[in-house]
Amino acid sequence: MRVEWALRLKGVEYEYIEEDIFNKTPLLLELNPVHKKVPVLIQGEKVILESFIILEYIDETWKQYPILPQDPYDRAMARFWAKVGEEKFLWDTCMAVWTQFEEEKEGYLKQAIESLQKIEEVLIKGKSKFFGGEKIGYLDIALGWISYWLPVWEEVGSMKIVDPILFPSITAWMENIRNHPVIKDKLPPRDKMVAYFQGRKKEIGASMAAARKG
Amino acid sequence: MRVEWALRLKGVEYEYIEEDIFNKTPLLLELNPVHKKVPVLIQGEKVILESFIILEYIDETWKQYPILPQDPYDRAMARFWAKVGEEKFLWDTCMAVWTQFEEEKEGYLKQAIESLQKIEEVLIKGKSKFFGGEKIGYLDIALGWISYWLPVWEEVGSMKIVDPILFPSITAWMENIRNHPVIKDKLPPRDKMVAYFQGRKKEIGASMAAARKG
Repeated sequence: MRVEWALRLKGVEYEYIEEDIFNKTPLLLELNPVHKKVPVLIQGEKVILESFIILEYIDETWKQYPILPQDPYDRAMARFWAKVGEEKFLWDTCMAVWTQFEEEKEGYLKQAIESLQKIEEVLIKGKSKFFGGEKIGYLDIALGWISYWLPVWEEVGSMKIVDPILFPSITAWMENIRNHPVIKDKLPPRDKMVAYFQGRKKEIGASMAAARKG
Repeated sequence: MRVEWALRLKGVEYEYIEEDIFNKTPLLLELNPVHKKVPVLIQGEKVILESFIILEYIDETWKQYPILPQDPYDRAMARFWAKVGEEKFLWDTCMAVWTQFEEEKEGYLKQAIESLQKIEEVLIKGKSKFFGGEKIGYLDIALGWISYWLPVWEEVGSMKIVDPILFPSITAWMENIRNHPVIKDKLPPRDKMVAYFQGRKKEIGASMAAARKG
């Protein structure tokens, strides 16, 4: 979705090809033999991999509507918080959803909330509608999953991370992201996603527990 | 070291402050409260974290001797292989050194060699002295640890990854990196490093085994 959002912000036409990440096509395995992951951006004969790398590529290739900040330090900060969101906050959130062990879940939730507090502070300091200012930028795209997927996963995991009292800025930002014209009509039906991840939770939780024993 | 190499390539003066990553100073914890990791680049009141992000910052701030390629696709490829080197090859290599379980070690070694084969192919395709062409660039800096640290770790782990017969291009490149004027006199004494990591291997291997049991 990050890639689609960036392309839409820039007004670049594209064709979207669906991949079931739990049942990958030979095309995906051929295009991304190292990680076997989506997203993959194909432009003519060029194949670009990894969502953050694709975002930088898009920003460097189509100059209209710059998504990264212009100042080197602001760029570094946007990249840093994107990485924290991905490697810490997203990771802890997913682990909290999937794990079958209550104590472990509490640990992941605690860490996730700590990361989100730091992200909330970034938003408070910026004093604007989005991380990127009054317009959506790189960090908004990188963290955008929080606005839509996090509530889905909170429901699937029977847990709460984004308490509106503790995270007023993030809560307002989530609403701004979900209502953005580029994003609004690209979100899949929520009920379908909840049902999908509820099914996956059982499978993944069981295989995680089995891997530990083995 | 990546940060030092980049600054030296650009001729930027800096002061180096040593951190023992196993016994971190309060300064480091204050500067990098999220990851508590080195490197940290301090420029006036600005604090920049994460080595790849610092490299981009350096390249955007001091324009002389560009380290990233100029073409967006080449930039994406350099970033992609840097990430593979870090998240797959470096990870598997370290795990192979630290683990106390022979079977697990074989698994990590196998994966490490598979990643290195892909990296070797990139170098072969490029047909030049460095990943960056005839001059050291971003990917050379990102993967530079292979030239010095990998042989140290191979010795500590009593293992071989870079077989010169299997990896002729990487082997030649390692020599080129180690002999580069910016790098040559910045490498710590090898014997001291081997002894240091031999000590660490015992500790880390034992704590990894204990964590698994717990």
